Amino acid sequence: MDKEIKTIHSWKNISLVEEFVPLPNGKNVVHTSICHPGAAVILPITEEGEIVLIKQFRPSLKKWFLELPAGTIEPNESVLSCAMRELEEETGYNAETIIPMGQVTPLAGFCDEIQHLFIAKDLTSTQHLTCDDDEVIEVVLMPLEMLEQKIVSGEVSDAKTIACLSKAKLSGFI
Amino acid sequence: MDKEIKTIHSWKNISLVEEFVPLPNGKNVVHTSICHPGAAVILPITEEGEIVLIKQFRPSLKKWFLELPAGTIEPNESVLSCAMRELEEETGYNAETIIPMGQVTPLAGFCDEIQHLFIAKDLTSTQHLTCDDDEVIEVVLMPLEMLEQKIVSGEVSDAKTIACLSKAKLSGFI
Repeated sequence: MDKEIKTIHSWKNISLVEEFVPLPNGKNVVHTSICHPGAAVILPITEEGEIVLIKQFRPSLKKWFLELPAGTIEPNESVLSCAMRELEEETGYNAETIIPMGQVTPLAGFCDEIQHLFIAKDLTSTQHLTCDDDEVIEVVLMPLEMLEQKIVSGEVSDAKTIACLSKAKLSGFI
Repeated sequence: MDKEIKTIHSWKNISLVEEFVPLPNGKNVVHTSICHPGAAVILPITEEGEIVLIKQFRPSLKKWFLELPAGTIEPNESVLSCAMRELEEETGYNAETIIPMGQVTPLAGFCDEIQHLFIAKDLTSTQHLTCDDDEVIEVVLMPLEMLEQKIVSGEVSDAKTIACLSKAKLSGFI
């Protein structure tokens, strides 16, 4: 039997749904879930070895976060195009080299979002930052060691930023 | 002015809201957000140095994930009690030593969930696994090196698991 989906609410390209899901144990559940088109997360590194981050005010948590640039995939947009667009919109940099590093899932418990990770090198500054109405952003450059200290101290707490850096390091990219 | 919140839908202890948020740039936005009570994420390590993970079917993504044990804080429950309860419910282990390692935010863009990270040591097996109706879980023990290989290969893609391991490693706990 195909799954049945009932949409409760939609905003931007996201929706909250209730869906009928058959489990591997033979039971069936009605599961409440966020349907999300997916996102790109970009780890940009300058020639000097500094990582380009954004300091961003997050309305959901009412505070500033130091994060890697990232954003939601638009309709009919490839993941790679999304990564390049978000990099320029949020940091004002273009990358000549952009390498996929796999995917992570931020909230598998009740959200189907997949975050596609990229490392971006050979950067040139275009200064073309473009912010949405609810985005308040500053660009911050920082060496990896300082960023890792901020992860330990808790100043950097964004899971996708920590996961992306960890994956890049374990994979030998940084 | 205090923020105004309109609840659109609630399930379990989670709710989808629209709220009025003043931004640091002086603008005001109506922001759609998931309100979540927070969660505990536990990194349990056996005396032999193996990490206790769970293989869990996730209805939102319709696939199995290899993750650290974790779960939502219940009403009137402390974060530490939540960590100990979820550890036993999901893995069948109790921990004599449980150390807080700070917090991460899994989806700051549209969810206020805070995940409280713990490392759990001096484990004893109680065999008392307790699963909710929509949880299908198997316990898996694995050395850190193998787990890190699975992060690189993409077999482990859960962001909180990768972030928690990374934070434990950078902090010198593992």
